[in-house]
Amino acid sequence: MWGWGLIVITAVSGEPFQKTLIDRATNLNVASWSITSREVCSDACDAWKVTKSRLAGGKQEGVDVIEIDSGRLRILVVPTRGMGIWQVMDGDVRIGWNSPVKEIVHPSFVSLPARGGLGWLDGFGEFLCRCGLENNGHPGRDTIKDNTGAESSTDLTLHGKLAYLPAEFVELRAETTAPYRLMLHGIVAERMMHGPKFCLDTTLTIGPGSHRFHITDKVVNESASPAEFELLYHTNFGSPLLEAGSELWAPTRKVVPFNDRAAEGNIHDFAKFGPPEVGFVEQVYCLELFGRDNGMTVIGLANKAKDRAVSMKYKTDQLPYLTLWKNTTAIEDGYVTGIEPGTNYPYNRSLERLAGRVPKLPGKQHRLFEIEFAFHSSKDEVAGLQKEIEAIQAGQATDFIPKPNPPKAESSR
Amino acid sequence: MWGWGLIVITAVSGEPFQKTLIDRATNLNVASWSITSREVCSDACDAWKVTKSRLAGGKQEGVDVIEIDSGRLRILVVPTRGMGIWQVMDGDVRIGWNSPVKEIVHPSFVSLPARGGLGWLDGFGEFLCRCGLENNGHPGRDTIKDNTGAESSTDLTLHGKLAYLPAEFVELRAETTAPYRLMLHGIVAERMMHGPKFCLDTTLTIGPGSHRFHITDKVVNESASPAEFELLYHTNFGSPLLEAGSELWAPTRKVVPFNDRAAEGNIHDFAKFGPPEVGFVEQVYCLELFGRDNGMTVIGLANKAKDRAVSMKYKTDQLPYLTLWKNTTAIEDGYVTGIEPGTNYPYNRSLERLAGRVPKLPGKQHRLFEIEFAFHSSKDEVAGLQKEIEAIQAGQATDFIPKPNPPKAESSR
Amino acid sequence: MWGWGLIVITAVSGEPFQKTLIDRATNLNVASWSITSREVCSDACDAWKVTKSRLAGGKQEGVDVIEIDSGRLRILVVPTRGMGIWQVMDGDVRIGWNSPVKEIVHPSFVSLPARGGLGWLDGFGEFLCRCGLENNGHPGRDTIKDNTGAESSTDLTLHGKLAYLPAEFVELRAETTAPYRLMLHGIVAERMMHGPKFCLDTTLTIGPGSHRFHITDKVVNESASPAEFELLYHTNFGSPLLEAGSELWAPTRKVVPFNDRAAEGNIHDFAKFGPPEVGFVEQVYCLELFGRDNGMTVIGLANKAKDRAVSMKYKTDQLPYLTLWKNTTAIEDGYVTGIEPGTNYPYNRSLERLAGRVPKLPGKQHRLFEIEFAFHSSKDEVAGLQKEIEAIQAGQATDFIPKPNPPKAESSR
Repeated sequence: MWGWGLIVITAVSGEPFQKTLIDRATNLNVASWSITSREVCSDACDAWKVTKSRLAGGKQEGVDVIEIDSGRLRILVVPTRGMGIWQVMDGDVRIGWNSPVKEIVHPSFVSLPARGGLGWLDGFGEFLCRCGLENNGHPGRDTIKDNTGAESSTDLTLHGKLAYLPAEFVELRAETTAPYRLMLHGIVAERMMHGPKFCLDTTLTIGPGSHRFHITDKVVNESASPAEFELLYHTNFGSPLLEAGSELWAPTRKVVPFNDRAAEGNIHDFAKFGPPEVGFVEQVYCLELFGRDNGMTVIGLANKAKDRAVSMKYKTDQLPYLTLWKNTTAIEDGYVTGIEPGTNYPYNRSLERLAGRVPKLPGKQHRLFEIEFAFHSSKDEVAGLQKEIEAIQAGQATDFIPKPNPPKAESSR
Repeated sequence: MWGWGLIVITAVSGEPFQKTLIDRATNLNVASWSITSREVCSDACDAWKVTKSRLAGGKQEGVDVIEIDSGRLRILVVPTRGMGIWQVMDGDVRIGWNSPVKEIVHPSFVSLPARGGLGWLDGFGEFLCRCGLENNGHPGRDTIKDNTGAESSTDLTLHGKLAYLPAEFVELRAETTAPYRLMLHGIVAERMMHGPKFCLDTTLTIGPGSHRFHITDKVVNESASPAEFELLYHTNFGSPLLEAGSELWAPTRKVVPFNDRAAEGNIHDFAKFGPPEVGFVEQVYCLELFGRDNGMTVIGLANKAKDRAVSMKYKTDQLPYLTLWKNTTAIEDGYVTGIEPGTNYPYNRSLERLAGRVPKLPGKQHRLFEIEFAFHSSKDEVAGLQKEIEAIQAGQATDFIPKPNPPKAESSR
Repeated sequence: MWGWGLIVITAVSGEPFQKTLIDRATNLNVASWSITSREVCSDACDAWKVTKSRLAGGKQEGVDVIEIDSGRLRILVVPTRGMGIWQVMDGDVRIGWNSPVKEIVHPSFVSLPARGGLGWLDGFGEFLCRCGLENNGHPGRDTIKDNTGAESSTDLTLHGKLAYLPAEFVELRAETTAPYRLMLHGIVAERMMHGPKFCLDTTLTIGPGSHRFHITDKVVNESASPAEFELLYHTNFGSPLLEAGSELWAPTRKVVPFNDRAAEGNIHDFAKFGPPEVGFVEQVYCLELFGRDNGMTVIGLANKAKDRAVSMKYKTDQLPYLTLWKNTTAIEDGYVTGIEPGTNYPYNRSLERLAGRVPKLPGKQHRLFEIEFAFHSSKDEVAGLQKEIEAIQAGQATDFIPKPNPPKAESSR
């Protein structure tokens, strides 16, 4: 395993190849560029290719995308949308989902406050979309400090700004000695005067030909004063991985329906997925997981035949709350499940604060988050994943709570 | 007449010339391009020219425009603003209006929710501006389904999003055999997750040297579930066609003032226009029209001398409600009239729903809308138009309602 | 002194060099360009250089900037942000401030209504940022005329739109005869249908090698009807000019704390600045100044050693109200003071109207505003400035009001 608890990019042996692609400090944004392993490490490493290009047409005009083709996985990263990952191709199989939003929408076409704070949904289509950093979750009233320093009640918008902020810095690093890893490093700033001054420093690491990749994220509070933040990894899967008979595997300590709609189903079936259903209304579940002694946990989504799965490995002390979003509506309307580790559940921040689930970063401090994604494409690999997850559960009972239990203010309990 | 009830573009004989100008699927947006009849049909057809260019400077930075010069009419279409028509030049005469907004404003400079939902007015300047598709009309509270599937009260914005959505696909087709028609085909998507999934598929058709052109619009509901929609063709005329003594000709079944301000005038004079008046406050009228047996109706706006007019021909079963917007304010403030066939009147959608004027499209279905515009530039042509319209009225009485009758909820009647 | 009460650009002797850099009317925006004195006036004038360039990376993608290097001062003007001045370099010393917003943010990445109308703060970082024109000051409810001509209550946004509007016209003029002045002339339009139709016509004038420059602004009401407006010059200073021991020098007739927070300090110390303090909450003071007989006044900000200062000279009949914004928070959070002459104080417009501080422009009229900035870099120059300001005070007493006195509606007094 790679560098858990380290910033991977500092662990490189030898002098890596380095190319800056975006840098606001030097007024740089390379519109079109590509490089192959042959140019960097000749025949010493397996064939890989990295390509940066700029989209055109409709609401994707001006969007920058970077494809990392590791030889096996092809990962499409979108600097213009907060370094989100649009999709991962595992050979011919697309891991991601078919959002009704068919373009990779440029932030300039979206007004987050629109439609009661749901403007974020105008561009939502990622495989991995980070939600935060000032807040994530449902729109609605919460208290902020306004420009005069006074407490002021305002409307938060769904899932925050992060996915609609363009990266201010992006560089590719490629090791020139074994294990010849590729590292895509980006910085996304969520800064304002009289408000949050956050920075997401993210590195995606993958080895040539590998079936897995690693995300190392630092959330930095650039302010001299402490600041609340929220971060949720909105990871989304549609067809073909998601189908009737797909299953979520997770070492589950506790599961609670998010609201009355989620409570309609049998809570014991929360991990099973149905086929696309016209008019299906989303069901959301709030999970807590078991981890190994070091806090590491593993979750997976497997297809019906159990010959294809994607897994996520992370530490529950970094990301203690897992949200499962089951949205098995018609294909046309976005048949998808979201498997979303976070610092919190997606209730409005005002409620999450009541529940003690809004972390605070001291001034000039950062917090580290890491997730490793792996793509399993045979019965054996999938069976191995299932065993690994069962070993973490280790026979410990799951607490199935049938009724929703949203955070409540003292006065309304 | 051309292909009423057909998608005109499918009726082409021979192999037409085809050029794709914008296509998000292939990541294409041709910045600058032009073609003439000589290159397509040599001397066989009358001279025409089509030019695509990109604007710069101020709030028009990055806006794509396409001019179709048919030999007589020059039509300026704006893909970046929902395939609206900015103006039509009939020889030296500009048909359109002088909006105080002097740029063709790029959507990225406009926030629709701003100023109480009136942000749309920051860029309004079109000859033909489509209003919709989730809603059009006045801003204000209405119920939507939010991201959880719950009914939620939110603020709609004036006239919806459609005019602020860039086309995701645009192609020119030109027939290479008689009648050598030009067809500009565009697709504008109004899609979001957990919300409307509409598509406007529009074709503008004109023959070389013709004094008329034809709009064929399909509104497609891409969702698997039914969806309400609203569509209004905000067609606007200023000087020189609009002047003191100009008249609207329409086979009018019924006319009602929109509000108390409109009721201030003599309802029998609703069709007559005055000169520019400083500080004039708009007067709006709600009309229902007579049509021929097949539902076709014709309306026109004629100047004082009755030697110039523009007419619109359409079917009242497609567009049952006609809104007349008289805004004869000072030239500097936008001296203009809007003649606006629609599926509804421009009351807030919550009111239009009460009146039964919000149509619903079943899942994966579309509805067709067609309008033919004709430009008349002699006393004889204008007299002919007047006769055509009178023939539809055919002596049938108009119901003049002097008091406004806005839709009301049961409880408030 | 230069042309007070004149539009300077009309006062040029001889045929000046002229270059249009942005013009929406001719569809022009020169991406990259520069010129030097050598090309314009050979060796006759001191060396100067003007450069236009376009930024890239992060939220500054597509922003146009123009640097005027006069030989001594280098002034960075941002056409894309309402012709604001980002910073002034006086030799090696940067006059401006270190906003936590590190990019020169493009308007398309900002939604002004966001976060309770505080979206403006997402891009605030200028040395000189004009606030207006429909309104400036605090966000919150006020009455506007809506699209129907009715009085409607809506939320104004912080400091208005002006800093988020791209210039529609920019030209450089350079005199080819003595005194060889450079003039950067820009037009920024704040126009909408059914709303304000303003235009800012601004000229920045500087002589080769000069330590001062002159701003001549015309605010034009293009409407035929009268219109309220507000204009405030948000001029901002951070390190090194601002430090513990810096002082504001101003011939002060009256000073009142803006709110209870500002009243916490000793009102007699309002003009003294402290060091950066983590968590410091801004203190704002409302000043009225004395002027000379002709209304001209001078104010200055001097560093602790009194060997560096910046001064502003303007007429109190043009800009009767001066706001002092003391925001001596941590460096990381924006250690800054704003010295802000305006037509009003930054209370919400609804309050300013009650106080009679919202001016009205008749239809098709303009009003003139002029400010001269000078940069003093020796003890002698700074002492001279102090004497000039004391001479205006001329021993007249300052009225120190210890309690805030915000405008109140009659009913709530």
